Amino acid sequence: MAATSASGTNAVRYGTMRDNVINLEVVLSDGRILNTAGKDRNFRKTSAGYNLTSLFVGSEGTLGIITKTSLRLYGVPEAMMSAVCAFPSVQAAVDSTVQILQCGIPIARIEFLDDVMVDACNKYNGLSYHTLPTLFLEFHGTESGVREQVQQTEEITQLNGGSDFTWARDQEERSKLWTARHNAWYAALALRPGCRGYATDVCVPISKLPEIVMKTKKDLLESELTGPIAGHVGDGNFHCIMVLNVDDKDEVSRVKAFTDRLARRALALNGTCTGEHGIGLGKRSLLVEEIGEVGIATMKQIKATLDPQNIMNPGKVI
Amino acid sequence: MAATSASGTNAVRYGTMRDNVINLEVVLSDGRILNTAGKDRNFRKTSAGYNLTSLFVGSEGTLGIITKTSLRLYGVPEAMMSAVCAFPSVQAAVDSTVQILQCGIPIARIEFLDDVMVDACNKYNGLSYHTLPTLFLEFHGTESGVREQVQQTEEITQLNGGSDFTWARDQEERSKLWTARHNAWYAALALRPGCRGYATDVCVPISKLPEIVMKTKKDLLESELTGPIAGHVGDGNFHCIMVLNVDDKDEVSRVKAFTDRLARRALALNGTCTGEHGIGLGKRSLLVEEIGEVGIATMKQIKATLDPQNIMNPGKVI
Repeated sequence: MAATSASGTNAVRYGTMRDNVINLEVVLSDGRILNTAGKDRNFRKTSAGYNLTSLFVGSEGTLGIITKTSLRLYGVPEAMMSAVCAFPSVQAAVDSTVQILQCGIPIARIEFLDDVMVDACNKYNGLSYHTLPTLFLEFHGTESGVREQVQQTEEITQLNGGSDFTWARDQEERSKLWTARHNAWYAALALRPGCRGYATDVCVPISKLPEIVMKTKKDLLESELTGPIAGHVGDGNFHCIMVLNVDDKDEVSRVKAFTDRLARRALALNGTCTGEHGIGLGKRSLLVEEIGEVGIATMKQIKATLDPQNIMNPGKVI
Repeated sequence: MAATSASGTNAVRYGTMRDNVINLEVVLSDGRILNTAGKDRNFRKTSAGYNLTSLFVGSEGTLGIITKTSLRLYGVPEAMMSAVCAFPSVQAAVDSTVQILQCGIPIARIEFLDDVMVDACNKYNGLSYHTLPTLFLEFHGTESGVREQVQQTEEITQLNGGSDFTWARDQEERSKLWTARHNAWYAALALRPGCRGYATDVCVPISKLPEIVMKTKKDLLESELTGPIAGHVGDGNFHCIMVLNVDDKDEVSRVKAFTDRLARRALALNGTCTGEHGIGLGKRSLLVEEIGEVGIATMKQIKATLDPQNIMNPGKVI
C-alpha cells in the first residue's frame, strides 16, 4: 500500500496513502535503516527538514524496502449508510458525482460502475441491480448529519434523472454491497472464462471527469474490447478492467493501443496516467510524458543517489 | 508558505501546506525549471513516480526556488460560527481539546491562549476576555451541522469546567475575534515595549499535549521569562512567543536554554521540534536529534545531488 501510494473507495473522504502515512521504517540499498520522520515519531504536522516520508510513499521499492509504517487513524463514524443509484446515462452519473463534490457534501465513498461492470457484478455476486450506469454511495457522520447528506445528495441525483436510492442501512447489507464492489476484478474476469485481466487507471481534475469517461466508453465500443469501468470517481479516478484472450495477438495489441490512448487522454486533460496503480514497467514512457524531462532527470538523480548500484527493484518507474 | 511547510489556525480541519500543495514550479540550482507534478497538472491523487512536490514543500529554499504553486481549494461553508471559552486551568482547556478531537468533531479551528496571551490580546485589541486559559473555537458546516458540533463541544467544555461560550455569530464579530488571535505576535511584543520577539513552536501527538503544555508553563514561570503561549492545539502544536531584552545577556541565554528544553521536551514525547516554523539556522542540531543520523545523511545526499554547489539558501536546515 505505502510503496505504491495506493488508495481505494474511502480515499475521497479520508485520503490516500500519501495523506495517511506519517512515518516509515525503510531499509536502504546499503543496509542502513532509515526512519523517515525519526524513530518512533508521530504527530499531525511538522516542518522539520525534507519530507522523506512522502519521498518513499509511492517509490515502488526503487529507493528502499519499507519494513514498518505508521498510519493516521480515524474513528468509526457514529452513523453509516450506503445507497445504490442507477442513471439513464454515463453522463448523468458522472455529472452527479461532480455536483455532489462541488456542493461540498463530505461523502465517504462514491463509486461509479458502468453498465458492463454492473452486469458483471450482478452475475458474479447473485445481485439484481439494473444494468445501467450506477453509483454506489456511502455516507459517514452523525445520525442527523448523514440524514442531511443523503437528502442533499438525492436532490442532486434526481435532478440528473437518477433512480430512487436502494438502501443498505445495516452492517450486513452494507457489507454485501461493498463486497460486490471489491469483487469487481473477479466479476470482470468471469465475463469471459479462460481470459486474463489487465487493469489500468487514470485520474483527472474532477471537472474533466464526464468528458473522459464518455470518450473512453465510446473508445471501448469502437475497439470492440471488454473493459468494464469501475471508478473512484469522487477523486476523478477510474479503472478499466481489460479482459482479454492473451493468445489473440490482435486483441492484445488493441488493448495496448486502447490503454495508451486512455492514458494520453488523461494527460491531455491535465490528469495523471495513474491515480493509484503506479508506473511499474508498463507506464515508464507515459511517466516521461506526464512529468517532463526535468522531472524525470530529478527522479533519476534521486534514484542514483539513494541506490547507486541500482539494486532496489531495478528497471521499475524510471 | 510552501517553502516552509507553513500552516495556521485552519490546519486542524483543512491541513497544512504539505496537504494542500498539488504542484510547484521550481527553479533548480542550475537554472532549469522543474514542474514537480508535470506542467499544468492538477488532480486529487496520483501514483506516478516520486512525490517531488512534497520534497520541495518545506525545503526552505535549500533545494530550489519556488516560483509558482498550485493549491487545493475549499468551498466557503454554508454556516460558520465562532466561540470563546475560558477555563479554570491550562489542563482543563487542553484536556477539552483532546476530547473534542477524539470525539471526531470536525472542528475548523481550535486555538489555545494561556492567561498571559489573553491578557496581552485584551490590552492590544481593547477586548475584555477573562484573563484565564482560553480556547478560541470555530465551527464550519451546514446550519444544522454547526448546531450539532456546537452542542457536542459545549458538553465537553462544560464537563471540564469551561465557561459558557461567548459567541461571534456574524462576519464582523468573527473577524474581530480572529484578528485578535492573528495579532498575537504584536500583542505579545506590546507587553514589554522596547523588547524584541523570538517565536518558537513544537508539535506532539495530541494525547501528549496536556503534559507538555503544563510543563512548559511551569518552566516559563521558573525561568522568569515572558513567553505567552498561543497554540494550534488541535494539531498538538503550540507557540511560545518569547519577549526579551536582547541587551540583557543573561535573559538571552535563559531564553535559549528554555527554547532548547521545550524542543527536547517535545522530542522526548515522540514529537517534532517544529510544527510549522521550520529549521532555519536555529534548530539544525535539534533536527539531527529528531530525525537521526541516517535521516540527516539522506537529506544531505539529496541536497548535494540537487544543489552540488551549495548555492540555494546555503547553511540552512542541514
